[in-house]
Amino acid sequence: MVIARLIERKRDGGALAPGEWRSLVQAFALGEVPDYQVSALAMAVVFRGLEPAELAALTDAMLDSGDRLHWDGFPVPRVDKHSTGGVGDNTSLLLVPMVASVGAAVPMMSGRALGHTGGTLDKLEAIPGFRTRLSLREAEAQVRQIGCVMLGQTHEIAPADGRLYALRDVTGTVESVPLIAASIMSKKLAEGLTGLVLDVKRGGGAFIPKLDHALELARIMIALGASHGCDTVALLTAMDRPLGHACGNALEVEEAIAGLRGEGPADLMEVTFALGVEMLLAVGLESSRPAARSRLERAISSGGALDKLRQMIEAQGGNPAIVDDPGALPQARHSEAWLSPQDGLVCEVEPREIGRAINAMGGGRQRVTDYIDHSVGFHITVKPGHVVQRGQPLATIHAREEHGLELARRALSNAVRFGESASPLPLVSHRVTPAGVEDLA
Amino acid sequence: MVIARLIERKRDGGALAPGEWRSLVQAFALGEVPDYQVSALAMAVVFRGLEPAELAALTDAMLDSGDRLHWDGFPVPRVDKHSTGGVGDNTSLLLVPMVASVGAAVPMMSGRALGHTGGTLDKLEAIPGFRTRLSLREAEAQVRQIGCVMLGQTHEIAPADGRLYALRDVTGTVESVPLIAASIMSKKLAEGLTGLVLDVKRGGGAFIPKLDHALELARIMIALGASHGCDTVALLTAMDRPLGHACGNALEVEEAIAGLRGEGPADLMEVTFALGVEMLLAVGLESSRPAARSRLERAISSGGALDKLRQMIEAQGGNPAIVDDPGALPQARHSEAWLSPQDGLVCEVEPREIGRAINAMGGGRQRVTDYIDHSVGFHITVKPGHVVQRGQPLATIHAREEHGLELARRALSNAVRFGESASPLPLVSHRVTPAGVEDLA
Repeated sequence: MVIARLIERKRDGGALAPGEWRSLVQAFALGEVPDYQVSALAMAVVFRGLEPAELAALTDAMLDSGDRLHWDGFPVPRVDKHSTGGVGDNTSLLLVPMVASVGAAVPMMSGRALGHTGGTLDKLEAIPGFRTRLSLREAEAQVRQIGCVMLGQTHEIAPADGRLYALRDVTGTVESVPLIAASIMSKKLAEGLTGLVLDVKRGGGAFIPKLDHALELARIMIALGASHGCDTVALLTAMDRPLGHACGNALEVEEAIAGLRGEGPADLMEVTFALGVEMLLAVGLESSRPAARSRLERAISSGGALDKLRQMIEAQGGNPAIVDDPGALPQARHSEAWLSPQDGLVCEVEPREIGRAINAMGGGRQRVTDYIDHSVGFHITVKPGHVVQRGQPLATIHAREEHGLELARRALSNAVRFGESASPLPLVSHRVTPAGVEDLA
Repeated sequence: MVIARLIERKRDGGALAPGEWRSLVQAFALGEVPDYQVSALAMAVVFRGLEPAELAALTDAMLDSGDRLHWDGFPVPRVDKHSTGGVGDNTSLLLVPMVASVGAAVPMMSGRALGHTGGTLDKLEAIPGFRTRLSLREAEAQVRQIGCVMLGQTHEIAPADGRLYALRDVTGTVESVPLIAASIMSKKLAEGLTGLVLDVKRGGGAFIPKLDHALELARIMIALGASHGCDTVALLTAMDRPLGHACGNALEVEEAIAGLRGEGPADLMEVTFALGVEMLLAVGLESSRPAARSRLERAISSGGALDKLRQMIEAQGGNPAIVDDPGALPQARHSEAWLSPQDGLVCEVEPREIGRAINAMGGGRQRVTDYIDHSVGFHITVKPGHVVQRGQPLATIHAREEHGLELARRALSNAVRFGESASPLPLVSHRVTPAGVEDLA
C-alpha cells in the first residue's frame, strides 16, 4: 500500500477499497503513517467526499481501533442522544436522568466545549466533585446499577478517531460531512446501543449551518447506525439562537435542574421532550408519541427524573446537594442586568457571539490545558420575535471581573439585533429516519 | 497568523495575502510550520488554484529563501532552457554548448530523474569524472570563463522549494499547475537570467499530458518571468513518444555528441533548433528566426559547439575523451536487437513504459539513495507512423543482465503498438509569449 497513490486516487475522485481504509487507519493509529499524508488525504476527502462503502469502512476501522462498552446478559435496552453542538444546549443534562428514570439505560459519552459551542463534560464538571473520567468497566457497572452514566470519551474508545480529529482540527479539515459522521458514529457505536437519537443543529450557531448539509449529515449517520444494528433517528433543531436562557456551565446545570422540576424555559423543554420521545420510541419503551411524552412528563412531575440525577451525581462523586440548593454550584462574583438599548423588535440573538464571549470570559478553553471558570456566562431571556422597550432587562451577565463584564456587554450588543421582522427557525423542523425525511414545521 | 485559518480560507476558495504567503514560506523553511499543515494547504491549492498575486508571492518567497547567481559587471546576456520533463529528452546536452558557443552565457541548473522521466544531472554523471555539485560561486566563475555551466540545484537555491517539493511528492500534491510553476520559476529566477525558454511537454509521457493544462502552465510561468524582468517564452513540444532514438543516460550523452557533429536524429534536432532559436531571440543575440537558425547550424558545422562541450566537460572534471570516443562512456554488458513482432503500422511508442523500464533496469532510482547504472537503456529507431515488417529491428536494448533484457523486451512489447492509423502530436505545436499563443502546427 503506497499512501501517496491512495491520496492521488481520492484527489482524482476515485474511491479507496474498504481494506485500504482499514489498513490506513490501523497504520495511522500505530503512528506508522505520517500526519502529513493523512492531512492531505483528509483535505482531498473534504473536496471529493466518501462513497457509502468508504464511509462504513472508515467508521468501522476507527471503531475497531479501540474498546467498546459490553452489555452481555444485561436485558435493558440502551439509548443515547448526540447533539452536533450548540450554545445553551443542555438537553443532555435533562434527558439522561429523565430517560433512565423511565426504564431505558443511558450510557452517554460526551465531549468538551469545541469552538464557540459548549460541552456537556465541562457543564458536568461545574458540579463540585463530579468525576467524568471513568473507565469503561466503571461505566458499565454504574449503568447496570442505576441505569445511566455520563462520562468523557476515554482513550480506550476509537483512539484512531481521537488522533484523526486532533489532526483535522489544525488542518482545516473539520468541515467534511462524511468525516464528521464517521467521527461521531465511531464513538457512538462503541457504546453498544439499542437505539440512538441525533440532534442535528442547524442555523448560524451550528457547525453545519445549512439545511441541506445538516440533512445529509443526518442521513448518512442514520445509515451507519442502521448498518450496525442500532436504530437511529435524527431531529433537526434550531441553533440560530441560544437554546433556553442559560449559557455557561454552572448556569446550564442550574437551568437543567429547574427543568427537571418542571420549571424550564419553554423552548428548552420543547426540544428536550421531542428528543426524549424519540429515545423512548427508538428502544421500544413506548410505541406512540403521546404515550412517550406523558411518560416523560410523569418522570418530571413525580420527581423520578430529579431523583435519578441525584443518584447519578452521587455515584460519580459529585455533591448531590446542588440538586436542592443550586447555590452550592460555583457562583460568579459579578452579576449585572443587561438592558435593552432601544425600543423595538428583536429579530436575532446570534449564538456564536454568545458562545465566543463565554470562552473569552474564562468559561471555555483557548487551549486544551486552560482552566475553566464554570461560573461565568449569560442568562438571556430575550428571544427573536420579542418586542421590547428601552431599558427593559433582556439578560443577566455573570462574570468574574470587570473585564469579563465588558466583554459580555459587547457580545450582547453585537448578538441582540433589532429589525423590522423576525423569522427564527422552527425549534424542531425535520425528523429523519431510514424511511426518509418528515417535515415537522 | 493562525495556519489553520489560512488553510480554511484557501479551502473555501479565498486567497491568502502576499504577506501571508511570505510568512508561511519563511516559517516552513525554518521548520516552524508542521508538514501536516502545509500538505493540507497544498491539497487545497490543488483544488482551488492560486490567484496571480498569490502565485507571485509564493514564488518570490521560495526564491528569497535562498541565494542566487550574481552577475555584477558581467556584460554577457544569460539564457537558460527548462523542460517540464520527458523520455529521451537530451536537448539540454546539445543546447548548452551550442548557445554558449555563439555568445550567450548559459548557467543551467538541472534536476535528476523524476518518476518515469530522465534527469539531465544523471545523464551528465554518465561522463566519467563529471562534477555536477558545484557551489554557486564556482558556477559563476566558470560561466565568466567559458560561457556555460551545468550543475545540480544546490541547497543554497530556493531551499523552501526543495522542502515543499519533497513533501508534495509523497502527499499527492505534485499535480497542481500553479505549484509546478512556482517550483520551476523560483529556481530559474535564482539564476539571474536575461531570458528563459520553457519546453513544456505534452502528451502521454508528460507530467501534464493535456494541452489546455500545458498552455496554462506556460502562460503563468511566462507571466512570472515577465514580472521579474526575465524575458520568457515557451514552446509546447510532443512527449507522446520518446524524443530522438536514445533513452538512457550514457546513450543520450552519446546521441547528443552525435547531434553536435551534425548526425542527430531528425526529431531531436528539430526540437533542439526550435528551442535554440528562441534562446538566441530571447536575449537579442539575433533578431530573426532564420538568422538564429543559421548561426546555430554554423556552430555545429564549424565544430564550435562540440569544442564548447569539450571545454565544459574539462572544466567540470570530466573526461573530455568521450567527445571523440563515445566508447569511453559506460557500456552495458548485454545488447540485443528487438525485432518487430508483426507486419503493420506502428501507431504509438508509449514513453512512460520506456521510462519506467529504464528505472527498473537500474538506470534510474526507486529511492533517492539508489546507485544508477548509467549504461542501460534503449536505442529506439521506430516512430509512430512507420510501416514495418515482422522481424525488422526496431530497437536495441542495452542491459546489465538477463533480467534487465527481459524487462526491456516486455516494455517494448507494451510500448510499441500497432493499429490502423497513427496521429502523433506535432513536434513543436505552440509558441507562448506574453502577447499570446501562436499555433505552429
